[in-house]
Amino acid sequence: MNRIYYLIIFLLISSPFQAQTDLLIPYPHSIEIGEGQFRIKDGFSFKIIGSVKSERVNQALVNFGKRVAWYTTRRIDWLDMEDEGAGLTVSFNQTIQLSDHIDESYMLEVNHAGMNLTANTDIGILRGLETLIQSIGQDETGFFIPEMKIQDHARFAWRGLLVDVCRHFMPLDVLKRILDGMAHCKMNVFHWHLSEDQGFRVESKLFPKLHTLGSDGMYYTQDQVRDIVQYANLKGIRVVPEFDMPGHTTAWMVGHPELASAPGPYKIERYFGVFDPTMDPTKKSTYKFLEKWIKEMAELFPDAYFHIGGDENNGKQWDDNPSIQAFMKRNKLQDNHALQNFFNQKLHAILKKNGKQMMGWDEILQPGLDTSVVIHSWRGKEYMYLAAQKGYRSVLSNGYYIDLSYPAAHHYLNDPLPSDNPLSIEEQKRILGGEATMWSELVSPENIESRIWPRVAAIAERLWSPAHHRDTDNLYLRLQKLDKWLELSGSHHVRNRDYMIRRLSGEINPNILSSFLDWVEPLEGYKRHGSTPRYSSKTPLSRPVDAALLDAPASIKWRAMRAEFKQKEDWLVEYKKDLQIVLQLAPIWSREFSTSSALNQLLPLIEHLNDAAMIGMMMIESIEKNKQNMQQLAGWKQMLTSTKRATDELEIILPDLLLEMYVRSME
Amino acid sequence: MNRIYYLIIFLLISSPFQAQTDLLIPYPHSIEIGEGQFRIKDGFSFKIIGSVKSERVNQALVNFGKRVAWYTTRRIDWLDMEDEGAGLTVSFNQTIQLSDHIDESYMLEVNHAGMNLTANTDIGILRGLETLIQSIGQDETGFFIPEMKIQDHARFAWRGLLVDVCRHFMPLDVLKRILDGMAHCKMNVFHWHLSEDQGFRVESKLFPKLHTLGSDGMYYTQDQVRDIVQYANLKGIRVVPEFDMPGHTTAWMVGHPELASAPGPYKIERYFGVFDPTMDPTKKSTYKFLEKWIKEMAELFPDAYFHIGGDENNGKQWDDNPSIQAFMKRNKLQDNHALQNFFNQKLHAILKKNGKQMMGWDEILQPGLDTSVVIHSWRGKEYMYLAAQKGYRSVLSNGYYIDLSYPAAHHYLNDPLPSDNPLSIEEQKRILGGEATMWSELVSPENIESRIWPRVAAIAERLWSPAHHRDTDNLYLRLQKLDKWLELSGSHHVRNRDYMIRRLSGEINPNILSSFLDWVEPLEGYKRHGSTPRYSSKTPLSRPVDAALLDAPASIKWRAMRAEFKQKEDWLVEYKKDLQIVLQLAPIWSREFSTSSALNQLLPLIEHLNDAAMIGMMMIESIEKNKQNMQQLAGWKQMLTSTKRATDELEIILPDLLLEMYVRSME
Repeated sequence: MNRIYYLIIFLLISSPFQAQTDLLIPYPHSIEIGEGQFRIKDGFSFKIIGSVKSERVNQALVNFGKRVAWYTTRRIDWLDMEDEGAGLTVSFNQTIQLSDHIDESYMLEVNHAGMNLTANTDIGILRGLETLIQSIGQDETGFFIPEMKIQDHARFAWRGLLVDVCRHFMPLDVLKRILDGMAHCKMNVFHWHLSEDQGFRVESKLFPKLHTLGSDGMYYTQDQVRDIVQYANLKGIRVVPEFDMPGHTTAWMVGHPELASAPGPYKIERYFGVFDPTMDPTKKSTYKFLEKWIKEMAELFPDAYFHIGGDENNGKQWDDNPSIQAFMKRNKLQDNHALQNFFNQKLHAILKKNGKQMMGWDEILQPGLDTSVVIHSWRGKEYMYLAAQKGYRSVLSNGYYIDLSYPAAHHYLNDPLPSDNPLSIEEQKRILGGEATMWSELVSPENIESRIWPRVAAIAERLWSPAHHRDTDNLYLRLQKLDKWLELSGSHHVRNRDYMIRRLSGEINPNILSSFLDWVEPLEGYKRHGSTPRYSSKTPLSRPVDAALLDAPASIKWRAMRAEFKQKEDWLVEYKKDLQIVLQLAPIWSREFSTSSALNQLLPLIEHLNDAAMIGMMMIESIEKNKQNMQQLAGWKQMLTSTKRATDELEIILPDLLLEMYVRSME
Repeated sequence: MNRIYYLIIFLLISSPFQAQTDLLIPYPHSIEIGEGQFRIKDGFSFKIIGSVKSERVNQALVNFGKRVAWYTTRRIDWLDMEDEGAGLTVSFNQTIQLSDHIDESYMLEVNHAGMNLTANTDIGILRGLETLIQSIGQDETGFFIPEMKIQDHARFAWRGLLVDVCRHFMPLDVLKRILDGMAHCKMNVFHWHLSEDQGFRVESKLFPKLHTLGSDGMYYTQDQVRDIVQYANLKGIRVVPEFDMPGHTTAWMVGHPELASAPGPYKIERYFGVFDPTMDPTKKSTYKFLEKWIKEMAELFPDAYFHIGGDENNGKQWDDNPSIQAFMKRNKLQDNHALQNFFNQKLHAILKKNGKQMMGWDEILQPGLDTSVVIHSWRGKEYMYLAAQKGYRSVLSNGYYIDLSYPAAHHYLNDPLPSDNPLSIEEQKRILGGEATMWSELVSPENIESRIWPRVAAIAERLWSPAHHRDTDNLYLRLQKLDKWLELSGSHHVRNRDYMIRRLSGEINPNILSSFLDWVEPLEGYKRHGSTPRYSSKTPLSRPVDAALLDAPASIKWRAMRAEFKQKEDWLVEYKKDLQIVLQLAPIWSREFSTSSALNQLLPLIEHLNDAAMIGMMMIESIEKNKQNMQQLAGWKQMLTSTKRATDELEIILPDLLLEMYVRSME
């Protein structure tokens, strides 16, 4: 019956004044800031000039007005748009259909009397409104937008996010919130990964066994698909469906074993990886089936592109099937690549007949493939360049795998067309853009948003803004400030994670776990997939590693501080304070976590963190004496090695941050 | 460029050990606790015994297993239910259709080797699973359920929650989460308030102008209605639709002015209150319309009951319409009550033809009304008793208006059938139960859940548990612990409110605002409706008053502490610590809020709170000297009066808590 009291010390840092416009993300192509301000008062209203009608603009204005009203707590006419008076004037020339070559440019002028947003297309207006909302500042008398003139346009036409709804199903409201965040970051392609070994996620009226037997009841009805497509369209986002073929197709075979290259029966796959079930490309019935089914899907998904996957076919079922082997011989198909190419060309013909442009992962780049096909590069940027050189258009995802727990800066610096790229001007035009990929083996509806945001904004900026923006410290400063706009736009990434921390904490104050998770990140790359017991669809994703962010808050903060303070002396002071807090909290973390069976496995990490913090204090002392040199750096690195041992798929980030600090202190 | 540091002190209180089973809510009718435990390990599985199939039970077990898995971070077979081995065995005799007279009883036996849940009906199994999940405890080696035997059943058959989706529209996912919370609290009627002056919220295929012109596009499609009905049904919750007639009907008239008693045209009402537009009960065309439309709705909503509202008809349009006046004379209808009664009897006939039982607010209790009609008492409990005495069945909502910011204890103590009730045994049987009413004039999708939870659990217990449970301190102790189970069940009430606090806080640490909001509550009753400028659908509900809880956290905590500690000396120590924290935080609140235009209106409340805390310290000192008396009480009351002045629709709760403390210290 002991009652224990803790004084937990939380340090609040009121940031030095930072103009909201310095924090814009994606950063605009041209911006001039004036001295004055447009003050947001009660009665702020909207006006659309011109006779062009756009449901997108109407809804975007209602949504913008509502966000401004709720953020500022001021009454703004976000429902009727009837009132006269000062406010926002919007004009545009045309309403367009979404495609991969649209004009998204806009111009924004703000002075004390009002705001003008002009664009050629209605999509440009949508993009401009997101810049405008990020510009809202606050002082003790109210809210304002600074006088400014912004001219802006997209660098790449294809700025996508793949969401895998197969390994873990994502309900409709989660998808809509992800679309809200994408729209806020000016992204324009939602790549919907809809079929897999672990699930077939779209209702088919022609072949209902696909979704009824292949989804555990977790699929989207056709009405729901239409709902998402319309929701995305209104936000200027295209929806490109992916149905992965001929591999990654176990869930198809549960209802339709006749499609497979081995007899079956099949069960929905519960584990993750590469599996044997593969469509039989030698049977006419396969194409008969696909003809009908693709026609049905082509009508459901209005976008010009249709992604057929085509990756990771292990070929085992083909190798083991004598009739397939005979077919290959008969048709002079020398290997499985050639057979898959045969299949792809059949698919291409069907898609063409249905008015669709085929797209697939870079394995499909094989001799004879029609150059209208878009190559989606995932294995390496070299495949993208190769494709462009061979005349194919291409989209980059290699380097944008956001599920692998690499830092946002890693993705940020990955430019599809760096200045030293090997392509000619003509070939460069074939690089449509890029796509972040949210594979969901280790992601649930609860943490998918905190896996995506704010990190994907780094990729959004890479694809929208001028190439010369490459300051990663500044990136982290802006990512840190972006959460409030993402939340205002609808994202639940912060609140859902907070709940995960509360649930894990049980009777412990959640601030204690939260302050610990500031300093750890999940293992990078594919390491988590190698853990024991093996992950399956049944594994609860509610452990500390699932609540830990892929860019740990302290990691974002330490980098952001360098951009915020610029002077080494200033950020070192902050670092020292953080290390002192770690040293103060370490015994509290240990004592509390040891009482909880959901957290006591973290104890070794606390020791590592405590050790690293002590080493860090010494490093700062040495820096303060200006004694840095490369030999010492090697010494510190050596000292920090033992603190990097992972536990429960988590590792502490402090060793890396300290080494980075040391290196930066030598600049 | 000043950087300011604050040390915010958060006090963590690790609670003394409290058995999870002491915290059950609604509390079961009979419970025996043993010494042992069933330990939850990896591999825990389910088994359904018997041949009766119930989709409800299947889904409930999957949902239960998933919750247990995610809560305990243990791998539990929540998807396949294939495995053998220790775990939960479930058996029941029949699958039933939901009605107001079903058997919801269950029996739960847990020992170290396993758990048995038995019930007569599948609904009983659902109820038992919620008790079981609330019983999960945790220690340093893992999770467990204590050995126990529980026998339980419902006291009242009708345990409802009305949700008004008209004043503010509530999206589908919000409704589903509310249903999740209701199911967790064993509630069984979702009263869906679907039409109003401010909106008509259901798609009509026969009269599409109702929803297209009457809803600002915010309505439920018929598919979505069916989705909600099915979702609720699977959780053992009936859906009773309400279409309020003949008043509260402005939104109908926008598309169908011919239904009104004055020519129109009409616009969707943006303000709140009682308005003139009323259906014309004298025209045959009105009933022709209603005949068709009710038939359509009767098919859409399968429940036996259909709520026709019938409240707050101001009669102005009837008084002003000569043809209606002539009709009344012709038909010897002496006043508007008689005319409305005439209308209700026509409605009753139509509903009867469609197999529906009519239900309406207590104004409809007029001479000649068929006794099959259910009277829904909102103006006073006396109407319910009157109805029962006249032979009508009745449901109580008077005293359960959860939008009015009364404490949960107020609703808790409101028993439909207190021991001193004036009804005979026969008449008592006509009291079906009660319904909490979540009117939404001042409620948005963002804060509706934190308006409902955990407070409505108090009403759920009143309607489920034995009448003798009336200890309000103990209620608050259990409500405080309920949040984690509600969150686990799907509710977003905590996380959404946290976001509201973050948004309001801007650059200020949200813990600062949160610690302040612990001590304030919105004005009670209808006072907020009288504020200037008048509330409308456009008013952002994002101010501090909207983030403040209706039972302030400190208010719950102070009451819970008395139940937790029992000894006066112990809880007084805690109170003193809280007051010291208030005195320490007051200057920080003042300094921080004064920099924010969204928060600086709160400054007077901080002063009041500071003053009250100082008075409170004196009161505790006086109690410690055992000097309490009634005269002193009056003195303290006098001193505290000036601290109770409201600001921005908020008032501090400390004066009431202090007086309550003083009174309790005399017991």
